[in-house]
Amino acid sequence: MQTPWEYRYAHRVKQMSSSVIRELLKLTEQPDIISFGGGLPAPDVFPIQEYREACSYVLDHFGAQALQYSTTEGYHPLREMIARHTARYSVLVTPDNILITSGSQQALDFMGRVFINRGDYIVVESPTYLGALQAWNAYGAQFIPVRTDENGMIVDELEAALRIGPKFIYILPNFQNPSGVTLSLERRKKLIELADKYGVPIVEDDPYGQLRYEGEHIPSLVALDSQYRGYDGECYSGNVIYLSTFSKLLAPGLRLAWVIAPEQVIRKLVMTKQGADLHTASFNQYVAYEVGKGGFLDEHVKVIRAVYKERRDVMLEMMEEMFPPEVHWTRPQGGMFLWGILPEHMDSAEVLKVAIERKVAFVPGTAFHATGGGENTMRLNFSYSSPDTIREGITRLGITLKELIAKNGYH
Amino acid sequence: MQTPWEYRYAHRVKQMSSSVIRELLKLTEQPDIISFGGGLPAPDVFPIQEYREACSYVLDHFGAQALQYSTTEGYHPLREMIARHTARYSVLVTPDNILITSGSQQALDFMGRVFINRGDYIVVESPTYLGALQAWNAYGAQFIPVRTDENGMIVDELEAALRIGPKFIYILPNFQNPSGVTLSLERRKKLIELADKYGVPIVEDDPYGQLRYEGEHIPSLVALDSQYRGYDGECYSGNVIYLSTFSKLLAPGLRLAWVIAPEQVIRKLVMTKQGADLHTASFNQYVAYEVGKGGFLDEHVKVIRAVYKERRDVMLEMMEEMFPPEVHWTRPQGGMFLWGILPEHMDSAEVLKVAIERKVAFVPGTAFHATGGGENTMRLNFSYSSPDTIREGITRLGITLKELIAKNGYH
Repeated sequence: MQTPWEYRYAHRVKQMSSSVIRELLKLTEQPDIISFGGGLPAPDVFPIQEYREACSYVLDHFGAQALQYSTTEGYHPLREMIARHTARYSVLVTPDNILITSGSQQALDFMGRVFINRGDYIVVESPTYLGALQAWNAYGAQFIPVRTDENGMIVDELEAALRIGPKFIYILPNFQNPSGVTLSLERRKKLIELADKYGVPIVEDDPYGQLRYEGEHIPSLVALDSQYRGYDGECYSGNVIYLSTFSKLLAPGLRLAWVIAPEQVIRKLVMTKQGADLHTASFNQYVAYEVGKGGFLDEHVKVIRAVYKERRDVMLEMMEEMFPPEVHWTRPQGGMFLWGILPEHMDSAEVLKVAIERKVAFVPGTAFHATGGGENTMRLNFSYSSPDTIREGITRLGITLKELIAKNGYH
Repeated sequence: MQTPWEYRYAHRVKQMSSSVIRELLKLTEQPDIISFGGGLPAPDVFPIQEYREACSYVLDHFGAQALQYSTTEGYHPLREMIARHTARYSVLVTPDNILITSGSQQALDFMGRVFINRGDYIVVESPTYLGALQAWNAYGAQFIPVRTDENGMIVDELEAALRIGPKFIYILPNFQNPSGVTLSLERRKKLIELADKYGVPIVEDDPYGQLRYEGEHIPSLVALDSQYRGYDGECYSGNVIYLSTFSKLLAPGLRLAWVIAPEQVIRKLVMTKQGADLHTASFNQYVAYEVGKGGFLDEHVKVIRAVYKERRDVMLEMMEEMFPPEVHWTRPQGGMFLWGILPEHMDSAEVLKVAIERKVAFVPGTAFHATGGGENTMRLNFSYSSPDTIREGITRLGITLKELIAKNGYH
């Protein structure tokens, strides 16, 4: 007899199915399509030569250790390097406050595993990062979306959400994925205070913090929380769990990210990781440390900023030129994405179907909405495509939008 | 106010705590202790030079792809290579039947995620692999242990367990971790039939299958199930999910393993992996493919076998010479572990305390028992230590055992 597998699955995965959007996006993998749909860094800025040298160095000097099983917490010198980097921003941490994860997606998954019981509420921005929703849906989370504007989460609307008693607040304060907006300093301070008032922890997801192309650096939530609590020369033990990654600074194909948290939370995460995958690849951690230890990443990030800034500028200029006046969009000061807003009754999934025929693609915004809505929104990535490709792609997309708006009379 | 984190954790991790055994094993990390406690491959057999060349080759030729995000399923040429390897054992699969995971521990975790509802029963061997128990406890599994003897799981005792309606049977048929025993061909066939009769899937965990030092290869459960179902030139779609890994053949520090399963199960696992860590490090997959593609691993495994066989032989000889007659042990035909059985009322955790004072260590057997018991058992690893170190360590352990037995009069 055939095994009827579909009746063997656990509750948590029964609902999982490939979404309509994912099916549409598969079409965008055809090589002749210009896709602004992915969230890929530009391979042009991967430090391949430095990485090559580091691989050889590590294998020549630490081959036996770098290829062996290692501790769940992560490679100690790498955690020390991250602690030093964090201290630059006035947040004092030790390696015991740091866990290396197999990419930030694993850190998000662990937030779900460690904190979310079925039915727990999580405060998220609207829109928010798709990967977090995907990870936490599996643990039965319910989401409380808080609206955003050009200055990030509208913190005045947060208090009502906090009175529901959520497990934590999830927020991407810098150049948010998907919207590209940045939380203002004033709102950051208000957020820290409100979270403290209601005793609700904050999960700060900061993959793009280093990728600012204009304007002044704004302190992270973990830094502001440290300041708010008056930690002075003490190790951070506040209300914020901070996530970041080497995916955007070095390369995503290594799957290396980190969590900063109070030590007791790290200990729980370490036990979780032990059951999940034992540890992140030792070799990758050794190599990332070798590439980063001499301060190379500080120089390298300047190269990335220059490349992405140009691409962002080209995309914004082209949109100004080619998009119909009924369409609006954000103007990110950094990161990899911007957010388009179509006329109210226009459906971006329908636009995508026509756009694919014209060989250009993006991600419809509904995917980033925890509780529905956002049909008239779209996410565009500007980091991956070359300036010329961006020009051509935005031209195609502009023509598509103009045509559809003219045909259907949206306004 | 301080955040009271301990009240924020989800049910599934509330019970997690560092075990007494783990605390004891921490003591064994002191450099002057001879530890038979870990499950480490010998770094002497890591193919560092081949790995170094492959890293350079991959970065020279595929840098942009190998450092980029990639598909969740895994690198296609690597999955093709695994499919070809699998076909040698008369199991026909395509890359669509294969998922690359971040080590076998992740595959075990996914078995839990995808199949186990709180309270579900899982049939395991007694003793069984600690990492599986750890992974599945988080999903609220209940375990039905089936006893083992020198021929592996006592399959005659399995039928009663199957009538309880378990989600799946978990078994390590080759050179089992921890006991070192191998399931006989006759029992394998009986197991396939019983599983089919009751419609209960089998999760076959086979990290050591290639590491046989004597005796004839016995077909895997997935091969026997394929034969039993009369698949002939058809793609495998039977009742067994098969797990294996590059950790023992190449190196564990890369975290590379794979799952073979019917395509619909792979699709579910892929969706699960998307939320868990997006994909396994692309670079590691490219490099493993480069190292393996020309048939290098077939030659390399012979080297590993020779090294481990010598170590096993030395350990067995020394135990024969040094251990008191009241102690018994298994004689594995392969793998990395053997299993010691002390007199009935002797507690191996107590032995460990004394052994650590004498600078030698092992893992007490209780850790491998799903529902308690096994206080008088111990796991010894023979792959990691050099023959001389094994001689010295077993001498120390023998003295410790003789002393304790003489003192307490166990028999």
